[in-house]
Amino acid sequence: MRPYVFVNVAMSADGKLSTRERRQVKISGSIDFRRVDQIKAGSDAIMVGIGTVLADDPSLTVKDPELKAGRAARGEDENPIRVVVDSRGRTPIEAAILNKGSGQRIVAVAGEADEKNRELLREKADVITTGTESVDLPALLDALHARGVRRLMVEGGGTLIWSLIKEDLVDEIQTFIGNMVIGGKDAPTLADGEGFLAAQDFVGLDLADVLRMEEGILLTWKVRHQQRSIL
Amino acid sequence: MRPYVFVNVAMSADGKLSTRERRQVKISGSIDFRRVDQIKAGSDAIMVGIGTVLADDPSLTVKDPELKAGRAARGEDENPIRVVVDSRGRTPIEAAILNKGSGQRIVAVAGEADEKNRELLREKADVITTGTESVDLPALLDALHARGVRRLMVEGGGTLIWSLIKEDLVDEIQTFIGNMVIGGKDAPTLADGEGFLAAQDFVGLDLADVLRMEEGILLTWKVRHQQRSIL
Repeated sequence: MRPYVFVNVAMSADGKLSTRERRQVKISGSIDFRRVDQIKAGSDAIMVGIGTVLADDPSLTVKDPELKAGRAARGEDENPIRVVVDSRGRTPIEAAILNKGSGQRIVAVAGEADEKNRELLREKADVITTGTESVDLPALLDALHARGVRRLMVEGGGTLIWSLIKEDLVDEIQTFIGNMVIGGKDAPTLADGEGFLAAQDFVGLDLADVLRMEEGILLTWKVRHQQRSIL
Repeated sequence: MRPYVFVNVAMSADGKLSTRERRQVKISGSIDFRRVDQIKAGSDAIMVGIGTVLADDPSLTVKDPELKAGRAARGEDENPIRVVVDSRGRTPIEAAILNKGSGQRIVAVAGEADEKNRELLREKADVITTGTESVDLPALLDALHARGVRRLMVEGGGTLIWSLIKEDLVDEIQTFIGNMVIGGKDAPTLADGEGFLAAQDFVGLDLADVLRMEEGILLTWKVRHQQRSIL
């Protein structure tokens, strides 16, 4: 059993999440910011990869006091459980995600992660170990489900999203496409990693919703779960 | 003076034009195919970069006999002028673009292109030389305008499109976004190259049109021409 997994990203018209230096840039406006805050507040957990933590140091907290109050009124922590997928246990102990705002944290590491790192991280977070060299994502999602996570929001980056998509663990992808070109063959995209090589392996989607918003457009895709050939 | 320059590409939901091996893949369907054939037939010239020629060997001909007949009835060649931007003159003499279908061809090279290559290419195409190490795109567009080209369609790839965008030479960008994830940090995108590093350098767009088509969506962006700081 795993949670419902949805990816939410903002990208430029040419499909970039940020510059090639991974500098965080404003792609959407205040309406989208509010929308993302809402869906964050409606999630049980929010997940990012270690690359995003090291590049952006996001706190991933809910920003709106009313949304926080709403969560509290439902008996929930102010913030969803924040999860870092961090095979080698490199999350800095001073990272915003481990220190800002109340609520639970999970750092998901692999068996080969340095034990000293794990000990340190246990001061700030639950450490879940799956896999050997890298985190076993199905096992991690299973563990999250066992802790009551039913809706899991994935914020990025492109390497984590690619891994989740490749293992057919994503149910929905929302992309806000902003009105700019960023460019760069090395700039991060929604799905990085190695990529599929043949059309029969591509993950198919259904366009569930289209919404013009501010100066861009929000696309909601549902992932077609199908038996794909495993190479 | 330069032509009206519009870019037309099909990309996956994660912004990829093809796989990382640059294998040509079907992103859109027959309705989009017909639409692209129409706008091709309505163009005076169609431009691609040498990378696309070497990877895909496209002919860039108009496919529909009626559209060809329409061009002939207007006193035009059956196909728009086909232009390869090829700084070093590496277009293979047997390339489809130089051999398939009637109409003019131009290979745009830079001053440092091998003279033997240029001689060979002159058997099949007009060779226009601008720039020294790489093609001077504003000068090339000026030369095309002088030859009567008023509407120039750019089909790719990502490196050529990036260069045109960076030099503020693009007026319109049409992206058909297909219902699949291709993935791959090395897969080509709409705008590759080095990319912009700071938000104030991003090229701004206006979303002019949105059209759901088959299982994807067609976005039409107009480029905001503005005085950007030149570093």
